Amino acid sequence: MNQSLVTALRREARDAPDSGIVEVFNYGRGRPGLIPLWAGEGDLSTPEFIHAATAKSLAAGETFYTYQRGIPELRAALARYHERHFGRPFSPERFFVTGGGMQAIQIAITATAGTGAEMVLLTPAWPNFAGAAGIGGARPIEVPLDFDGTSWTIDFDRLRAAITPATRAIFVNSPSNPTGWTATEEDLRSILDIARKAGCWIIADEVYSRFVFDGAERAPSFYDVMEEDDRIIFVNTFSKNWAMTGWRIGWISAPATIGGIIENLIQYSTSGVATFMQRGAVAALDDGEAFAREQIERARLGREIVCGGLEGSNRINFAWPDGAFYLFFRIEGVGDTAKLALKLVDEANIGMAPGSAFGKGAEQFMRLCFLRKANDLKEATRRLSAWLER
Amino acid sequence: MNQSLVTALRREARDAPDSGIVEVFNYGRGRPGLIPLWAGEGDLSTPEFIHAATAKSLAAGETFYTYQRGIPELRAALARYHERHFGRPFSPERFFVTGGGMQAIQIAITATAGTGAEMVLLTPAWPNFAGAAGIGGARPIEVPLDFDGTSWTIDFDRLRAAITPATRAIFVNSPSNPTGWTATEEDLRSILDIARKAGCWIIADEVYSRFVFDGAERAPSFYDVMEEDDRIIFVNTFSKNWAMTGWRIGWISAPATIGGIIENLIQYSTSGVATFMQRGAVAALDDGEAFAREQIERARLGREIVCGGLEGSNRINFAWPDGAFYLFFRIEGVGDTAKLALKLVDEANIGMAPGSAFGKGAEQFMRLCFLRKANDLKEATRRLSAWLER
Repeated sequence: MNQSLVTALRREARDAPDSGIVEVFNYGRGRPGLIPLWAGEGDLSTPEFIHAATAKSLAAGETFYTYQRGIPELRAALARYHERHFGRPFSPERFFVTGGGMQAIQIAITATAGTGAEMVLLTPAWPNFAGAAGIGGARPIEVPLDFDGTSWTIDFDRLRAAITPATRAIFVNSPSNPTGWTATEEDLRSILDIARKAGCWIIADEVYSRFVFDGAERAPSFYDVMEEDDRIIFVNTFSKNWAMTGWRIGWISAPATIGGIIENLIQYSTSGVATFMQRGAVAALDDGEAFAREQIERARLGREIVCGGLEGSNRINFAWPDGAFYLFFRIEGVGDTAKLALKLVDEANIGMAPGSAFGKGAEQFMRLCFLRKANDLKEATRRLSAWLER
Repeated sequence: MNQSLVTALRREARDAPDSGIVEVFNYGRGRPGLIPLWAGEGDLSTPEFIHAATAKSLAAGETFYTYQRGIPELRAALARYHERHFGRPFSPERFFVTGGGMQAIQIAITATAGTGAEMVLLTPAWPNFAGAAGIGGARPIEVPLDFDGTSWTIDFDRLRAAITPATRAIFVNSPSNPTGWTATEEDLRSILDIARKAGCWIIADEVYSRFVFDGAERAPSFYDVMEEDDRIIFVNTFSKNWAMTGWRIGWISAPATIGGIIENLIQYSTSGVATFMQRGAVAALDDGEAFAREQIERARLGREIVCGGLEGSNRINFAWPDGAFYLFFRIEGVGDTAKLALKLVDEANIGMAPGSAFGKGAEQFMRLCFLRKANDLKEATRRLSAWLER
């Protein structure tokens, strides 16, 4: 009788896969001494200057309905932030505030690809891209990157071959969660060329663009290669740069001409984001550069610790990530990393995300987040090395 | 060229109607002296004891990812709240925290009715029910209530006739925004019987259940007539009882057996609600009864002022609302209330929502929110009476 309730639900909702990351998170939550490196978040809470702006707004009674697209102050702050980082003007009319980067993704997909459509994505990939597409009725088409033991590369012939008349969007996450693969400007030009020829949209997830390790200020961006009227929707979040993962606030950047449609998609899903949250986000953008740089430096050091500490092991191999803040490593002789992730909680007291959660080509991998204080990462590296040598 | 960006978007996204409420809101926002009665919110900001709980959580660093379904403390508080109001036990496992009542609605629809499906709803209705269904690919089927000049009634033959093999859900909002129609227990039994026979879901929006004016503690509820395994998903919000409209926090109550699917729908849309927001919501439930009663008393007084003040007019007619906090009145000889709403901003300095936004049978009506301080409502009533007598 209970089962009939489940089967009475819509097929696409029933078919949405459980998050393999949440599974291990729930398994290991609260274990004494466990070092949690499973989620895509650091170990610092949101800095005080950000939550003070939110508390002030709350105390001032800013608790009423507000603009569906976001308050003008935040949209202007987003324009200024982009101007600083891309060295050219941006209109506030490009920006739309969302309930996290995840809602930005969901809205971008809902705007472009539904039932009967296909969305191409490069894998390994954060599972939520395909999850959101599938719930919306679109078919996610996975195009695996190549891994040769020390680096990830994109095969453009494979990407071109994946495009069909049903393709409505190509989802590009660079720098990539989980692989750290970071598209060159040339890569982005090639992807854009493919999308233009197909007449489809690009959904550009450049959430980790500040987290690069080659000395550059940021990763190459579609902003560097696009024309104003290209079909590109950018999805982004306050989570990573400013330690605001739990806030659920992000943004979309898209041609202003489709703004009315994005506003409606916000209206009919969450009806906007709390003004007091947006005040915190304004503080993050306007006053948060020093903190963001600290986060990036923390990731740089974390990368040295875990990649340097593990590269001697002959049981694993990996690419040093060019961007983002994950080590994504393959373990020799492992079939099912979903089980391994639970085993590593029990046997090494480390929480990591199983590669099996990240789609095609990722089954033998584990993902470890290194945006964390050095001592924890050193200890996790020690525990993992010891476990690997058993 | 710009237009081609719009036409390149998914049809269901393009076709989502602009909110007729937002249109007048944007038109009148900031007019000096305007009395804003357009939105479904009162004039009180969130009480201090609620936002203090949020500020405290923020200061304590509760800014990390959390449970997709909501923190255990809030789910337990929801169970206690329901126990108090319905006089029987509720399991915390029934409850799922969402980004507002709107997201609860979107998730309930996504879980039940997508492309190729039909969702039946009683109109006049808040436009977002049909808006969310349409974006998801489902066809909203409007079943108008009957209005005889002094009351609204449901025609069950009409409802039965609207059910087809494609019907996956019946959306029932009682007490109703905008009409104030409030289903009797007998009405609810009849609707449930129809849904059972059709094998479809009921989405029960009982957001205004505390706002009733017959001396009862609450409106009749599907909780009063259902069996545990009935296909009913309840959607609700903290917005109305506790003056938290701008927060965007609400909840779903559904059979625990479909909890995993609801969790996935949350994961792949907004990935949960900030812990610090949820702390405020716990305070609202546990310590907010006195405030909720004040809100309800305010609505009761507001109803007397506007309904009493306008019932003498021979240019309008309406039903005294049994529930919710809107006066929904028909103006004789008016064709297009979308234009009239803008005109009334200019000529009477009152902001009201046009009936045209609320679907079939509502075109000649205007909606006025009376959850507001007495002096404003008296002045609005005076202005509207004067305008009607011109």
